[in-house]
Amino acid sequence: MNRKPRIAMLLGDPAGIGPELIASLLAEAATTQAADIVLIADRAEFNEGMRIAGVDVAVTEVASLDTLDFSSGKPLFYDFRGATEGPFERAVSTVKGGRYCLDTLAVALDQTQAGATDAILFGPLNKSSMHMAGMDHNDELHWFAERLGFTGPFCEFNVLDGLWTSRVTSHVALAEVPQMITHDRVVDAIRLIDTELKRSGVARPRIAVCGLNPHNGDNGSFGREEIDVIAPAVTSAGALGMNVEGPFPADTIFLKVQGEQRAYDAIVTMYHDQGQIALKLMGFWRGVTVQGGLPIPIATPAHGTAFDISGQGKANLGATRQAFELACRMGRAQQANNK
Amino acid sequence: MNRKPRIAMLLGDPAGIGPELIASLLAEAATTQAADIVLIADRAEFNEGMRIAGVDVAVTEVASLDTLDFSSGKPLFYDFRGATEGPFERAVSTVKGGRYCLDTLAVALDQTQAGATDAILFGPLNKSSMHMAGMDHNDELHWFAERLGFTGPFCEFNVLDGLWTSRVTSHVALAEVPQMITHDRVVDAIRLIDTELKRSGVARPRIAVCGLNPHNGDNGSFGREEIDVIAPAVTSAGALGMNVEGPFPADTIFLKVQGEQRAYDAIVTMYHDQGQIALKLMGFWRGVTVQGGLPIPIATPAHGTAFDISGQGKANLGATRQAFELACRMGRAQQANNK
Repeated sequence: MNRKPRIAMLLGDPAGIGPELIASLLAEAATTQAADIVLIADRAEFNEGMRIAGVDVAVTEVASLDTLDFSSGKPLFYDFRGATEGPFERAVSTVKGGRYCLDTLAVALDQTQAGATDAILFGPLNKSSMHMAGMDHNDELHWFAERLGFTGPFCEFNVLDGLWTSRVTSHVALAEVPQMITHDRVVDAIRLIDTELKRSGVARPRIAVCGLNPHNGDNGSFGREEIDVIAPAVTSAGALGMNVEGPFPADTIFLKVQGEQRAYDAIVTMYHDQGQIALKLMGFWRGVTVQGGLPIPIATPAHGTAFDISGQGKANLGATRQAFELACRMGRAQQANNK
Repeated sequence: MNRKPRIAMLLGDPAGIGPELIASLLAEAATTQAADIVLIADRAEFNEGMRIAGVDVAVTEVASLDTLDFSSGKPLFYDFRGATEGPFERAVSTVKGGRYCLDTLAVALDQTQAGATDAILFGPLNKSSMHMAGMDHNDELHWFAERLGFTGPFCEFNVLDGLWTSRVTSHVALAEVPQMITHDRVVDAIRLIDTELKRSGVARPRIAVCGLNPHNGDNGSFGREEIDVIAPAVTSAGALGMNVEGPFPADTIFLKVQGEQRAYDAIVTMYHDQGQIALKLMGFWRGVTVQGGLPIPIATPAHGTAFDISGQGKANLGATRQAFELACRMGRAQQANNK
């Protein structure tokens, strides 16, 4: 019994470009054709998003999420905004905006963890707003993991035009990175992206691993992590059956996946900017963030709330569209668990 | 009395694509129109470069470099190969290739330091060959400085389509980078690129400075170098009259100089791959390396010897052409000293 993937959808921070992006996405016929959608959002904010985007989206309002009936063919709309009241401010970080994000995310996480929906797509969040609202994690991924009671390894993935990247370290000071590059962390990172790529439909992912130092340390002349840690970890992952190569110097590996000739499906980086400098240059308005390793699929556009253009109706829909497609693909794989 | 800039030109490592690139460059009429050229090279190797490139370059042979007479309008050719004998191997690092590079570079450095030529352009070198031949510096830039008796601050610049980048640290392990980011080093790096850009003809260079940590450390959440070191250094450089801004998160600053809209003339990075990942993605076959801060102008294509395509006549001339143009521009500024 194949059914469409069920996607829980959220606006993200009301101050940013999320509401207009989600409204635009839902206005495209391909969106409702590809998935059964539950939009969990404040009604006034969604109306505002439609107004900014210049679209009108027909929805089926539901009073509860207890049973979901998608027979109308239209997105289900659950009017919910959580603990706060009153209008949101635009283009600024606020407690209210952060609270709205956390409260709507909590509902979507519960729904999806319970199997009522297969994947989550959310509009851009604002870390400052969420910190102001009380999130005491460095990023939302750690908050998700805690809420889901998940204790295994997880990692933010960035996906661009089907190229996946992950990182062994993420939101930490650069000074802390080298000591965090351990054999097991590198193997875990390779395994995580291998698993997630398979979940998204790639049968045998080709994975490249970056070095840490310039020119891969030039045979130990400046840094030995490639020799002592990363190369052995790549060997270990290969012995476990993964199709992985490296380490490669970080300043040239991305040339091998640029344009038509794509030598790898995924690149495992050692630290945040190693991959982010490359991916943002390769396609800032098309990148998708996947919260990898968690028990439920979660995707969002990689760009932020873009306060500088919020409310102007000129936000680029590319990344949101790609995030939705990825959520659908991962949601279909998740269905097996949710039948 | 304006005369053409005088460029000392070298093939680089005979094993790589340097000879064919230099031959192709000299075969273009624009090259000899733009500069008076002295090619210091082994005759057999230059012949081989012409054969591979499929060009025939008319030169004026000279038996010594004591007095240079450019009245023929053709490049002067000084047949010189230094200490070694016998044929060179292709597409492999060798002592002989490294020795050839060091010996021809030494002549060009002496000539240019003496004011007989205004700038140096050389084909790609191979670090392994030069190390095998006895160069005991991490890179050729340090070897140049020692040979020139230069003890001031210097830095490798990478230039792409008129965008200049430099780095506060270069060929060092990533673990050593954070402690090397000091107030004075950052100010020196800003001053160096400001000076060099002015030398290349930019009246008031607009300079951006990168942060070190992801998201600039997110207000000290992961790393304080932006707050404690880099921002104060930017302020100091501004107080010295430089047109400089930052620090900026490294994963988005390059978007501001990509394509038509160029917000800055130069970006000062904190470590090697921060800039190199970006520049190589933006134009691997057009990038130029400038040995910045030295008393004489030196430029070379940023790509390497490309052993995988060496001798096949298909090397891309773009970077060599841009390196030559930059050498000419800096050479014209150098003329004032050499009259």
